[in-house]
Amino acid sequence: MRNIKLIIEYDGTHFQGWQTQQSRRGKSTVKSPRTVQGEIEAALEKIFKTNVTLDGSGRTDSGVHAAGQVANFKIKNKMPAAEIKNALNGNLPKDVVVIDAKDVNSDFHAQYSAKSKVYRYTVINCDTRSPLRCHFALLYNRQINVSLMRKEAAVLLGRHDFKSFEASDPVRQTKDRRRGTVRTIKRMTVKKKGDEIIFEIEADGFLYKMVRNIVGTLLEIGCGRLPPGSMKAILAQKDRKRAGATAKARGLSLLEVKY
Amino acid sequence: MRNIKLIIEYDGTHFQGWQTQQSRRGKSTVKSPRTVQGEIEAALEKIFKTNVTLDGSGRTDSGVHAAGQVANFKIKNKMPAAEIKNALNGNLPKDVVVIDAKDVNSDFHAQYSAKSKVYRYTVINCDTRSPLRCHFALLYNRQINVSLMRKEAAVLLGRHDFKSFEASDPVRQTKDRRRGTVRTIKRMTVKKKGDEIIFEIEADGFLYKMVRNIVGTLLEIGCGRLPPGSMKAILAQKDRKRAGATAKARGLSLLEVKY
Repeated sequence: MRNIKLIIEYDGTHFQGWQTQQSRRGKSTVKSPRTVQGEIEAALEKIFKTNVTLDGSGRTDSGVHAAGQVANFKIKNKMPAAEIKNALNGNLPKDVVVIDAKDVNSDFHAQYSAKSKVYRYTVINCDTRSPLRCHFALLYNRQINVSLMRKEAAVLLGRHDFKSFEASDPVRQTKDRRRGTVRTIKRMTVKKKGDEIIFEIEADGFLYKMVRNIVGTLLEIGCGRLPPGSMKAILAQKDRKRAGATAKARGLSLLEVKY
Repeated sequence: MRNIKLIIEYDGTHFQGWQTQQSRRGKSTVKSPRTVQGEIEAALEKIFKTNVTLDGSGRTDSGVHAAGQVANFKIKNKMPAAEIKNALNGNLPKDVVVIDAKDVNSDFHAQYSAKSKVYRYTVINCDTRSPLRCHFALLYNRQINVSLMRKEAAVLLGRHDFKSFEASDPVRQTKDRRRGTVRTIKRMTVKKKGDEIIFEIEADGFLYKMVRNIVGTLLEIGCGRLPPGSMKAILAQKDRKRAGATAKARGLSLLEVKY
C-alpha cells in the first residue's frame, strides 16, 4: 500500500470548510455541504475507481483559506505521484488545487505526524472597503495601536492552557477538551505593511477557532475596547467569555504544516 | 457648478469594463451590460435625484481591474465631498468602491487633464494554478527568461508609434487612429518576486489593449517563441500582426492616474 502526501491550496470562500460532514439526519436526502476534503475524495474516487479516505492535517473552518494544507491517503494503484497531481487538478474545481503530491513513508499521517502549523490572519485597517483585497482579509476601520497588540501577543508565546480562546460552540468545546486545551505557541508576529496588519502564529496545534479568537481579542485591545494587560488576564481566566469576538473567517489562511 | 474628482477601486472580474455601452439597437430592450461607470452613475442619480455624467480617465476593458481609476462629474448639490464618498459607497455593489472624493477646479477633466497612467500586469510563472492568486494574475507555465524580457522591454521606452500594439478589433483601431498611435512610455519595469513576474508601465496614454499586447509579446520573447530582438523589429514594423497575442484581462490593473 502506498502512502501519498498532498499539499493543497484553496480559496475557502465557497467551501463549508475542510472536513466532510457526516449527515446526522440518517435517511435524509439533503445534499451534503461542499467541503475541500469532499471535493478531493470525489476526484480521487473518479481517478482510482475505488473509495479513498483522505486524512487532513486538521479542519479549517467554513470560509478559511489555505496556501499549504496537507493531507494523505493510502492507495494500491501504481500511478506516479506527479501524474496523480495532474489527474487531481484536472478533476478539481478551480478554487482548490494540489500543489504537490509525493510518496511518503507508510507511517506518515497528515494530522498525527504534524509538528506545527502556521496560520496568517490579514486585516485591512482602513475605513473604506477594498474590492481587490477583501476576499482574503478582514476590513477593520477603528484606529489600532499595532505596537500594543504586538506586546500583548507576546504573552501568548510558549506553553499555556488556551481555554479562553476555545470555540464558544459546546460541541466543538467538548471535542477540543477531550484532547485538552494546552498548546504551545512557538512564534507569533504582528506586522504592519501599508494599511494592512498581518498576524502570523505558529503552534504545535490549535483549538477550534483559536486563531480567530486570539486575533479578535488583540484587535479589541489594539483599538482600546479592552485595556492594556487584558491578554495576560484573559489567558489566566480560562474562560471563553472573557476573550474578544471571533474574527471573521475570510482573513484567515493556513500557510504551512511542518513535519 | 462644483466639479468632483473620484478615485475608484474595482475588481473588474464581473464588469463589462469601465465604460457604459450605448445600445446600438435603437428600441431594443436588451439589458445593458454591467459597467463600472454605469454602476457609479446609477448611484449618483439615486443620491442626487438627477442625471449625472461621469467622465473617466479612460476605458478599462472587460475583466481589467483598477486600484486607482479616476473620474469626475459636475453637480450643483452642496453635499460635502466626504459625504458624497460615503453615500456612493453605501449605494455601490461590493466589487467597486470610491476611495476618495474631493472638490477640484472647474477645468479639471479626468481624461484630458491626465499627465500619465500607470498599469501593472501580474503573471504567475508556475505550472500549477493558484486559487488564492488567480483572480488578479495570469497563469503562465512556460519557462521565462526575465532578464531577456527586461532588456526587450527597454526598447519601448520613450516616444514611439505603437501601432504594432493596437487592438486587432478594426472599430477600436479606427477610434485609436483618430488620435494617432504615437505615445510616450515614461517607465517600464519587469520584476520577479517569487514565482510572480510583475510588469509596470507608465505612459502619457495607451492605445486600446496596448499594455496587454506588449505583455503578450514580451512573454513570447521570454519563453523563446519569438527570437531576441523581436521587440525592436515589431515596434518598427507598425503592424499588429507582428506582435504577440493579447495577454488575458485578469492580470491587468490600472494602478494610478497622474495629473
